[in-house]
Amino acid sequence: MIRVGIYGATGYTGFELIKLLQRHHQAQIVFATARSAAGKRLGDVFPTMIDLPLIDAEEANLAAVDVVFCCLPHGTTAPTVQRSLEAGVRVIDLSADFRLRDPADYQRWYGNTHPAPELLASAVYGLPELHREAIRHARLVANPGCYPTSVILALHPLVRAGLMADTNVIVDSKSGVSGAGRSLSLKTHFGETHETFSAYNIGRSHRHIAEMEQETGLQVIFSPHLLPVFKGILSTIYVRLPAGTDAALVREAYGVYRDEPFVRLLPGGRLPELRHAVGTNLCVLGIHPVDVDSGRYILVSVEDNLIKGASGQALQNMNVMFGLEETLGLMS
Amino acid sequence: MIRVGIYGATGYTGFELIKLLQRHHQAQIVFATARSAAGKRLGDVFPTMIDLPLIDAEEANLAAVDVVFCCLPHGTTAPTVQRSLEAGVRVIDLSADFRLRDPADYQRWYGNTHPAPELLASAVYGLPELHREAIRHARLVANPGCYPTSVILALHPLVRAGLMADTNVIVDSKSGVSGAGRSLSLKTHFGETHETFSAYNIGRSHRHIAEMEQETGLQVIFSPHLLPVFKGILSTIYVRLPAGTDAALVREAYGVYRDEPFVRLLPGGRLPELRHAVGTNLCVLGIHPVDVDSGRYILVSVEDNLIKGASGQALQNMNVMFGLEETLGLMS
Amino acid sequence: MIRVGIYGATGYTGFELIKLLQRHHQAQIVFATARSAAGKRLGDVFPTMIDLPLIDAEEANLAAVDVVFCCLPHGTTAPTVQRSLEAGVRVIDLSADFRLRDPADYQRWYGNTHPAPELLASAVYGLPELHREAIRHARLVANPGCYPTSVILALHPLVRAGLMADTNVIVDSKSGVSGAGRSLSLKTHFGETHETFSAYNIGRSHRHIAEMEQETGLQVIFSPHLLPVFKGILSTIYVRLPAGTDAALVREAYGVYRDEPFVRLLPGGRLPELRHAVGTNLCVLGIHPVDVDSGRYILVSVEDNLIKGASGQALQNMNVMFGLEETLGLMS
Amino acid sequence: MIRVGIYGATGYTGFELIKLLQRHHQAQIVFATARSAAGKRLGDVFPTMIDLPLIDAEEANLAAVDVVFCCLPHGTTAPTVQRSLEAGVRVIDLSADFRLRDPADYQRWYGNTHPAPELLASAVYGLPELHREAIRHARLVANPGCYPTSVILALHPLVRAGLMADTNVIVDSKSGVSGAGRSLSLKTHFGETHETFSAYNIGRSHRHIAEMEQETGLQVIFSPHLLPVFKGILSTIYVRLPAGTDAALVREAYGVYRDEPFVRLLPGGRLPELRHAVGTNLCVLGIHPVDVDSGRYILVSVEDNLIKGASGQALQNMNVMFGLEETLGLMS
Repeated sequence: MIRVGIYGATGYTGFELIKLLQRHHQAQIVFATARSAAGKRLGDVFPTMIDLPLIDAEEANLAAVDVVFCCLPHGTTAPTVQRSLEAGVRVIDLSADFRLRDPADYQRWYGNTHPAPELLASAVYGLPELHREAIRHARLVANPGCYPTSVILALHPLVRAGLMADTNVIVDSKSGVSGAGRSLSLKTHFGETHETFSAYNIGRSHRHIAEMEQETGLQVIFSPHLLPVFKGILSTIYVRLPAGTDAALVREAYGVYRDEPFVRLLPGGRLPELRHAVGTNLCVLGIHPVDVDSGRYILVSVEDNLIKGASGQALQNMNVMFGLEETLGLMS
Repeated sequence: MIRVGIYGATGYTGFELIKLLQRHHQAQIVFATARSAAGKRLGDVFPTMIDLPLIDAEEANLAAVDVVFCCLPHGTTAPTVQRSLEAGVRVIDLSADFRLRDPADYQRWYGNTHPAPELLASAVYGLPELHREAIRHARLVANPGCYPTSVILALHPLVRAGLMADTNVIVDSKSGVSGAGRSLSLKTHFGETHETFSAYNIGRSHRHIAEMEQETGLQVIFSPHLLPVFKGILSTIYVRLPAGTDAALVREAYGVYRDEPFVRLLPGGRLPELRHAVGTNLCVLGIHPVDVDSGRYILVSVEDNLIKGASGQALQNMNVMFGLEETLGLMS
Repeated sequence: MIRVGIYGATGYTGFELIKLLQRHHQAQIVFATARSAAGKRLGDVFPTMIDLPLIDAEEANLAAVDVVFCCLPHGTTAPTVQRSLEAGVRVIDLSADFRLRDPADYQRWYGNTHPAPELLASAVYGLPELHREAIRHARLVANPGCYPTSVILALHPLVRAGLMADTNVIVDSKSGVSGAGRSLSLKTHFGETHETFSAYNIGRSHRHIAEMEQETGLQVIFSPHLLPVFKGILSTIYVRLPAGTDAALVREAYGVYRDEPFVRLLPGGRLPELRHAVGTNLCVLGIHPVDVDSGRYILVSVEDNLIKGASGQALQNMNVMFGLEETLGLMS
Repeated sequence: MIRVGIYGATGYTGFELIKLLQRHHQAQIVFATARSAAGKRLGDVFPTMIDLPLIDAEEANLAAVDVVFCCLPHGTTAPTVQRSLEAGVRVIDLSADFRLRDPADYQRWYGNTHPAPELLASAVYGLPELHREAIRHARLVANPGCYPTSVILALHPLVRAGLMADTNVIVDSKSGVSGAGRSLSLKTHFGETHETFSAYNIGRSHRHIAEMEQETGLQVIFSPHLLPVFKGILSTIYVRLPAGTDAALVREAYGVYRDEPFVRLLPGGRLPELRHAVGTNLCVLGIHPVDVDSGRYILVSVEDNLIKGASGQALQNMNVMFGLEETLGLMS
């Protein structure tokens, strides 16, 4: 039985993680921390089947756990990560702080000097489909961002097969509102979000570009949009392959995912929609050949931003780290 | 041309009023005030076809207007109302402050002593279908609450015709989220409101009960619920009429609305739904005989909470006060 | 390992059942039938993690299963039920056909003579909280309707404790659109359902009244409404208890659910909302004393109409019938 | 007073047109036809403030009208158009049948030989911002498609100014469900549309590409998506301008819309969202410079698909054709 601690249990990722853990027969939640809700119970914050006391992070007993999940805001997670590692506890960090290998990239995209650059060398980017072996032995896993997960999984096979004729890629992504978190803002007020749709931080401004480029080696123009749904990301990706590349060859490249439990490629002629993935740990992919002669293709990728894009992937990483069956707690 | 001033233009009722006024060919907005947004333009706050400068209330020129609409929070409106009346300007107040004739009722339901009890005698409850003549001559019109409008219009004909065998009434109402206003709170956060539904302040606790009872003379058990839509109220009302009262007699009582432009009674066998009224100034009614023998009937009433339940009714009141055609600016 | 057959896998209840069964470690789906989709695979009809061949009902091998779930339309299920029972297979029927003990009630509410009245004596109404012992030994379990589950669970403790001063009850229920099924109709067309809200079949006309009255002995005025969400039912129930009945006594009556895994009573002062139950097999209850002197109370009850109101309850029944832990496959 | 006839009043475009016409003080609806609903009244089909008898198309009195709007399915409209023109009545056709100048394009994209090629020479593409003078004198106006309106208005100024360095354009569009019409299909069933999001007919397959290319001279890769809202289209458009083209120069090109009442360009740094346009006849544009050095820009364009994308534009065309103020009936 893996003994688990959770830092930051009352945000959407913390809560989703707890919901998943309750179905996981070989893991047990030892503590869950909260800031303003410390002293309350989880059921006071979220309507839920399960219940847990919420404690102050100071009271967390690291000696009693094998692994901690840090669901804290980026920029604030380093002290917790360090303390946990020093206590011999393995860490899965859901913030952005340990995802970029080069501290200069962190500085550039997040606007601050990195809070703990000495940890970067040992941190592993927690995308099991790309880095499973390294994750197995990692002490610190940096869980990928929501958008990057759906985009990197879509592009990786083409890069790996040397099929990208143009390293410039246009990624047009659409995400549910839960991606903006649970903090209050006019942006997430029902009256300003419901029955509308908008683009934000488009072009070269969204921080998640850094992860996409690090893991694919491509240059990405990225346009995120806000959907009036709670969960899910659909990315429409425009690529140029060598002129004449036919669809069979492209599909062959995706054979790399043949044995992956959480990546699905739909048959030719079908495209995934949000509900193919929402509520599951799947990333579902579709390939559309626009024009074989000129090598233009469109990829469509969907995932649940809180599951494969956050807490489900974190749990998948835990399963890998502790040698458990990778799908444990994630079959739904 | 009626010259109009608006206090509090950046809440949902203020904005809805401005949208309606732009289609009204005999009214002209002279000023619109805002607090935190003073100095900006309306287009900076709301996406809209029209645009207006937003000024501080202190800068409003009362000498330039014939009527002001006060779209301010209850408890804060009295000084503005007084200043306007003293300047010879007629007032339509959309807050709750002048709706209850008895200051003791205000004390009981709102928890404070009334801020200007001397004005209550001259204030007219602005439901044109009940008080049109008084509104015509009023200097101060207290625009009704959103829930009370839909409920009073449904019950009034039965009370007037002496058909209420039991003065206890159960009102089960469901309202869109715009009723909770534009202020930030977890209650109106997209993630906590979307795809859910809840009851709140049920039984004898919601303040709107006071208006319903004042205008109907009945005792009301009132259960408001929050719908995951932006606009609209549907009230399901359970009444007991004298045993044996048949449906034709009941429908006859609603003949009182025969010439009303904004109240519709659907034919027997049909019930109104939210979209019959949303976007219009209509209150649409349906009558369902549950059991003629025991006199049990259900009434269903719908309206747009921001139009007939607030700003549309305010404009209707303005039309009445200034002798204009009552439907001006409200035909859609 | 319980071997399971499913008749009617491509409606919403069939699909929800399959999603739940894939997490159930002691059950295994042996066959799933469909009518128009026979020959396809489940993944062609529904986006999903799992996949199954869909066969014609004629090809179902009853010798290979221990239990079948019938997710067929009411009025059509009898031949399948009979054939299964004759083959020695236990049956959980999700249609309405075996819920009413008296065939005259079936005739009255469903408008047809009962298709297999000889089976009614042995059928057990599958609400485990009321009939667990009988379910344990039943060969044919009639799974309750969605509305009745939420209403009967709310009223049962008061009836059992003799606390109903008035046997007339008003039930104002609101249900998500999935309750209307997956067949095409203008009523479930996005443009006619989205952003609206309506009452239907109110008063004494909805067939589910029959179950409510059979199980509680009360007379029910029932007003169902259609919410613009996919899943969930919230019922607001108005009752009269003996004058002076205080809240502590009422709460004591609900102690009957103390050890029930799937019924929750919220603490005084709190009311359940839809999302407390959606996605789970819970029925969550709240009690609001309107006026102790006159004995007026309001009950609020929520459930997921496809889980506790249909497929989750069916699985709970299976667990009871086969002596398994009752929560198996239902902990989320 | 312009006398108006409407063919096909009970689809979403017909109904939206009627709602707009009721606010238009210089137009009067003389007849409205329907197929299956002929003999009923409009209020039986749609909840609405207005009411009209619905007649069979055969009974329409063309002698009594100045103009007809044809809201019929493409491929079926030609006989009605011909009969109207022969009766001396001007025609605004909302179908796709007269939008493409070259009958070979019609054959290619719609799969049939054109039903009335002899009318194409005199038909005018009804986008007033591009073809106002021709519309003024036209007898037959082909009202543009919903997607093309938002896309052509966004691209036209760049084409006109000679600023397109690459004639290949990627258009990623997202539309509300009303674009799929009111006919029943699983695609528009609430349970399959709500809380999801999907791409369809992407690449080079959607018929609206033909209009976009005819009016801009560009080659378009077009990816439409289905949003879970009722109304509105947002298009995200990726273009390449000459290297080094700075934003001021680009904005200058959009000066062509300076006096247009229904096209708005937002200030630099702001992007339009769906609700900027829904409920209005506006097309609102935003320009985002991704990288001036390489000339990469993103355009964002929003409109209400049923208003500027259909019925509002049709009414704007009528105003132009009859020399009325162009904004009449469209100010909201």
